Amino acid sequence: MQIILLSGGSGQRLWPLSNDVRSKQFLKIFDNGECMLQRVVKQIRRTNSNASITIATADKQVPLIKKFLGDEFDLSPEPCRRNTFPSIALAAAYLHEVKRIDLNESIIVCPVDPYVDDNFFALFTTLAAQVADTPLVLMGIAPTYPSEKYGYIIPQTADNISRVVTFKEKPNLADAKKFIAAGALWNGGIFAFKLGYVLDKAEKLLGTSAHDTLKKIYADLPNISFDYAVVEHEKKISVVRYSDEWKDIGTWNTLTEVLASNSIGQVQSDATCANLHVINNSDVPIICMGLRDAVVAAGPEGILVSDKVASSYIKPFVERLDKQIRFAEKSWGSFKIIDVESESLTVKVTLNRGSRMRYHSHERRSEVWNFIAGTGRIIVDGLEKIVRAGDVIQLPIGSKHTVIADEPLKIIEVQFGCDITIDDKIIWQEMN
Amino acid sequence: MQIILLSGGSGQRLWPLSNDVRSKQFLKIFDNGECMLQRVVKQIRRTNSNASITIATADKQVPLIKKFLGDEFDLSPEPCRRNTFPSIALAAAYLHEVKRIDLNESIIVCPVDPYVDDNFFALFTTLAAQVADTPLVLMGIAPTYPSEKYGYIIPQTADNISRVVTFKEKPNLADAKKFIAAGALWNGGIFAFKLGYVLDKAEKLLGTSAHDTLKKIYADLPNISFDYAVVEHEKKISVVRYSDEWKDIGTWNTLTEVLASNSIGQVQSDATCANLHVINNSDVPIICMGLRDAVVAAGPEGILVSDKVASSYIKPFVERLDKQIRFAEKSWGSFKIIDVESESLTVKVTLNRGSRMRYHSHERRSEVWNFIAGTGRIIVDGLEKIVRAGDVIQLPIGSKHTVIADEPLKIIEVQFGCDITIDDKIIWQEMN
Repeated sequence: MQIILLSGGSGQRLWPLSNDVRSKQFLKIFDNGECMLQRVVKQIRRTNSNASITIATADKQVPLIKKFLGDEFDLSPEPCRRNTFPSIALAAAYLHEVKRIDLNESIIVCPVDPYVDDNFFALFTTLAAQVADTPLVLMGIAPTYPSEKYGYIIPQTADNISRVVTFKEKPNLADAKKFIAAGALWNGGIFAFKLGYVLDKAEKLLGTSAHDTLKKIYADLPNISFDYAVVEHEKKISVVRYSDEWKDIGTWNTLTEVLASNSIGQVQSDATCANLHVINNSDVPIICMGLRDAVVAAGPEGILVSDKVASSYIKPFVERLDKQIRFAEKSWGSFKIIDVESESLTVKVTLNRGSRMRYHSHERRSEVWNFIAGTGRIIVDGLEKIVRAGDVIQLPIGSKHTVIADEPLKIIEVQFGCDITIDDKIIWQEMN
Repeated sequence: MQIILLSGGSGQRLWPLSNDVRSKQFLKIFDNGECMLQRVVKQIRRTNSNASITIATADKQVPLIKKFLGDEFDLSPEPCRRNTFPSIALAAAYLHEVKRIDLNESIIVCPVDPYVDDNFFALFTTLAAQVADTPLVLMGIAPTYPSEKYGYIIPQTADNISRVVTFKEKPNLADAKKFIAAGALWNGGIFAFKLGYVLDKAEKLLGTSAHDTLKKIYADLPNISFDYAVVEHEKKISVVRYSDEWKDIGTWNTLTEVLASNSIGQVQSDATCANLHVINNSDVPIICMGLRDAVVAAGPEGILVSDKVASSYIKPFVERLDKQIRFAEKSWGSFKIIDVESESLTVKVTLNRGSRMRYHSHERRSEVWNFIAGTGRIIVDGLEKIVRAGDVIQLPIGSKHTVIADEPLKIIEVQFGCDITIDDKIIWQEMN
């Protein structure tokens, strides 16, 4: 059994704490400091010890995946953001061509956001076995209310394994009620099939199933989900029923249900607050008074204050925002924009012990590095020099430079110029 | 007629946008960009053209008073924060000894937070005249509900001018209801008396009415309000009735009633928000969803999210906060702390055109000035040098330094040291 873990996604619904780079699956929300990605991977390993996991993710999230999981996983990075069908097709092509997996091998596709007990993942064996009978197998979740957010599966019988009569993605409320009355299950976002099945679909719908070609034409592939592209058109589907608690933690409303604590960070709330969650990732205190059924989330990118139910509808508001990323965690450390002026940008850069920047230069800006913590070495135009807290290094336009953190380093970097952009960076291979 | 305008106050109830330095009367909340201080001063001048105004304020607020009002007012600065009785006594001593005001002259004491029409201030003439009949005259506000926040005045008659039967500061709800049923008025915080009257009280209660002595022993004076010290013990009081709209804008709940707009700064709110005010003085966007009867205020010091009524009770929560001031407006410009580490502090300093720092040095920290906008001159250890955006100046421990802004200057100042405090500053008079 091969498992494709879908760990892409923009995380806009968990703004301001997640963004294109720092997505929801990386938020450390659990008591033990773990994020969803770590939790799901652990659960899969506990329940499917023989399974091999491949993580389908966005190119720019690769450093974070490695930071949280190390280097031991196979990765299928998307060159750009597409929906689940292209992403699954690309990962399948990778399994076939690079990992040499047999076309008859069972593949399980699993998203990274189900917050469930281990027995959810233990059902993967059942799904994998069922692929012998029907080309496509889904996981059906016993629904708790007529949600408009999920896909609905109507099974032939109420058995634990059943053939599927109808599948409908995100119906309106009236239809959702009808489906539930007819014994429908929510689509849990798990798909099982033989490797050859999805490669056939890629051939038919995308014109190719070749790994290299898919990578090359990825930006031109249709932005379509596996549900719409494949599931809605498949006649022979089985569903495996799952009746225990299931939460997808893709919105603040559902995420707060699984948080270990009602408040994280510098927070005070008065005694009249009820069902309030406050996640404060900013560096200033928050005071909350008289709030009910609400979520407050603050970080370097912004502040959300929302009724919990209303918070599910945040996406269009986030889309309207200026998309400048003000904070990001990277494999080498993190950066945070702390001041913006018309002809300068001030950034706090943190480098982990042993990490280094790439050797680079800028054409349209000079920089000053104010070292405020740690020790390390800089190389500027080929010359190496030791630096420590208190040192100040000026980097004129065009100078080639890098820094190596021998101890964790913190730098206040002041950039000067009338045209400061992230594109203004030339990478140099040699150091001298 | 002499008017003492009380413009001290900690502004804790309007946290995070006001603090010990930047108090509520300086918040620019009106359409025309004015603050309460400017509004009240204009109203007094319009309605009492012959009156002379003396502003009783905190020492550290003097620069802001000058910034908003210029240099044309008499100031009576308190050496430290005390309540209204010491503050009024000090201002009275100033009027007597420095301004040589006659002991029989009528004095009107007026706080800076009544949000009212001009006819409120027009009544000052009536109060001043009434001082001939009773030693103490109050302004009585027709109450609108049994508030526990105000003092209650029970007049003998329902006439526009009446003798006072009883005065009670901040009663409980039951008593407040009884008082209102008995025809009570709220105490509007206006006191009228002859100059000699309050100097006598100072002599009796504080042991002196001499200006220099009061200044010298100010820190040891009792922290007592004029209401408790004088009004509650005076047998002969008159009250002048005011029946029009009156608001004290000392809390978010009342302040938001007079705000020109429901949102200030980068704010998005969804269609389900109602009776919501958002004041965003931070540099990140705020999204609000599904909030009712609430106020959100964000700035460099913190974030408040509160039900409007509950917001009146914020004070104890603010008192529990770390009191480090992260942002302040000064007569010469402003400063904002943008990064805090154990052995460094990064501050954005803005200097207005023509302003300068005092010539100073530090014993336990070095500094780096990264000039990010403007032009000016620095003097370091007696040597003058022109600086402009892009320049970086290192100031070792002990170096004497200042900067003069020839054009508006912006500096990212990085402070290095393991013991960074605001006390570590030695002021030097000579420049070379």
